[in-house]
Amino acid sequence: MAQLTFEEATRLATLALRLAGAGEAMAASTARALVRAEAQGLASHGLSRVAQYATHLRNGRANGRALPAVTRHKGAAILVDAGQGLAFPACDLAISTAITTAQTLAVCFAGVTNSHHCGVLVDHLRAVADAGMVGLGFANSPAAMPAAGGKHPIFGTNPIAAAFPRRNADPLLIDLSLSEVARGKLMVAAKEGQAIPLGWALDSQGQPTTDPKAGLAGSMLPLGAASSPKGAMLALIVELLVTAVIGAQFGFEASSFFVDEGNAPRIGQAFIVIDPGALAGQDVYYERMETLVSEMLIDDGVRLAGARRTSLEEKARNSGLTIPDALKDQLDRLVA
Amino acid sequence: MAQLTFEEATRLATLALRLAGAGEAMAASTARALVRAEAQGLASHGLSRVAQYATHLRNGRANGRALPAVTRHKGAAILVDAGQGLAFPACDLAISTAITTAQTLAVCFAGVTNSHHCGVLVDHLRAVADAGMVGLGFANSPAAMPAAGGKHPIFGTNPIAAAFPRRNADPLLIDLSLSEVARGKLMVAAKEGQAIPLGWALDSQGQPTTDPKAGLAGSMLPLGAASSPKGAMLALIVELLVTAVIGAQFGFEASSFFVDEGNAPRIGQAFIVIDPGALAGQDVYYERMETLVSEMLIDDGVRLAGARRTSLEEKARNSGLTIPDALKDQLDRLVA
Repeated sequence: MAQLTFEEATRLATLALRLAGAGEAMAASTARALVRAEAQGLASHGLSRVAQYATHLRNGRANGRALPAVTRHKGAAILVDAGQGLAFPACDLAISTAITTAQTLAVCFAGVTNSHHCGVLVDHLRAVADAGMVGLGFANSPAAMPAAGGKHPIFGTNPIAAAFPRRNADPLLIDLSLSEVARGKLMVAAKEGQAIPLGWALDSQGQPTTDPKAGLAGSMLPLGAASSPKGAMLALIVELLVTAVIGAQFGFEASSFFVDEGNAPRIGQAFIVIDPGALAGQDVYYERMETLVSEMLIDDGVRLAGARRTSLEEKARNSGLTIPDALKDQLDRLVA
Repeated sequence: MAQLTFEEATRLATLALRLAGAGEAMAASTARALVRAEAQGLASHGLSRVAQYATHLRNGRANGRALPAVTRHKGAAILVDAGQGLAFPACDLAISTAITTAQTLAVCFAGVTNSHHCGVLVDHLRAVADAGMVGLGFANSPAAMPAAGGKHPIFGTNPIAAAFPRRNADPLLIDLSLSEVARGKLMVAAKEGQAIPLGWALDSQGQPTTDPKAGLAGSMLPLGAASSPKGAMLALIVELLVTAVIGAQFGFEASSFFVDEGNAPRIGQAFIVIDPGALAGQDVYYERMETLVSEMLIDDGVRLAGARRTSLEEKARNSGLTIPDALKDQLDRLVA
């Protein structure tokens, strides 16, 4: 394993993205997000993405010169066009504009169109919680799951995230994709020659399968799909919020992120920012938060959402990151 | 079975609620919603609720004289106080004010506090779709499900709903509670002496159970709880949106709806209305909707969300409702 300080990791990732064609702001914003994810223990959304994004910058699936801009703004609705660049600077702009708008109008819906992979969705909402407001986040991704009753992949794993600030404590941070399990679990099972439970995946013919390799060639199933269409219905809501409502591309129109070649995905993200001060009032809001947290913690098994990630990130900011040698080598090659 | 025209059922329900103490507007709004649910084949949210609501009106758990009012309005956020009355007139006011607000500001978040059971959540959003806008709905209910990792019930089954209008076609209407199964499934299993699968319920000690009676005395499990905390995390998001954000009571603070005695639940509902015309633009929005619908319908097994309910309601409006004799007798006794 290789050791890196937080600053070294950030410089390395920034440089790799710059060399692949990303503008200064895009590289900095993207590196900041990827290092943060790595620090939180989310390796699948961390520094391993640098090489993937660099490839997309080089082959035109992402435009490194894009400058995100607010292209529509009516009342409490704003639309940011990511210009087919990496998603992070566009999400930054959407969030900062949404916070400012919600400070005046109490609410803002901010969409990001013509976008790319947005990393750890809930991390975009940390700034919202820091401003004392509640944030919701939605995103789509290349098609991986069928509609309820369907056989072929249409929706991405379509995460939902939320951030709820607390007074004198870390915010509650919730982030979940709507697939029953992550694709990575099928990869592990395939490697180990293990069967997977029914309800995880369909094969390429749309039939339920216990073979992880068949599942990888087919589609992932939505949360709880073995017994109900609810997960697929939630994925439908997310898909429409971040496509039809804001004009972005569907998951089935976007090429996979896990292959080098393909189109500019032009997928979408959406954020909703709400000022509880304008509704419950600040004092009532914070009282309600602490009342619920206390009730939840009565049960020993309950952990507060996001607490582990936040403390891992804090630790890494002080004592650095440990990453696999192969990943360090990959980053070094990108900047050589 | 007893036959009733739509108008007869509405008159009967209205009168029963009026005699139990509901004001004219509250009775009319509630009756309209319950008959509509009955017509859609949703018996659990239909005319069987008339007797329950009447009991609550008589014993003070719901205030028949309450007049809902907009008590806060800042920019795109509005708060409606239901005054501990039945939820329906308060939700009507929240939705109509939200639509008007979104016509100017493109977005509105409308909370309803000091509220009661709101019936079929998505039906409140039909007016939003009729206005050409997208609606989201959230509600809590008396505690039925534990937090992730927890043992005692904290959250309600906390439904999420969404309405997406289409051009020249019925809107997509999505409505799902966040429990793995409805309580009714445990009641059926208990009656028939059948075991239930693990993942449906916990017993009163917070242990997984296959005994439906033990589950009924314990708590329901969230969607997909057998394999992940995702359903519980979604229930947490909904709970906080409709309580902390707007100042309403938690599910664990509200007495069950299925017992006569108890407190005024003072729970919450929240609606988000978004005008896609201000974001994607009307034409792009409708093009996107039809593109996704076409892609979904490639698979034979896919049915459009809400289509069955809408067609059942239309049929009942023309040819009347069929309800069990015992339910007809109950309604007749309430108006005797």
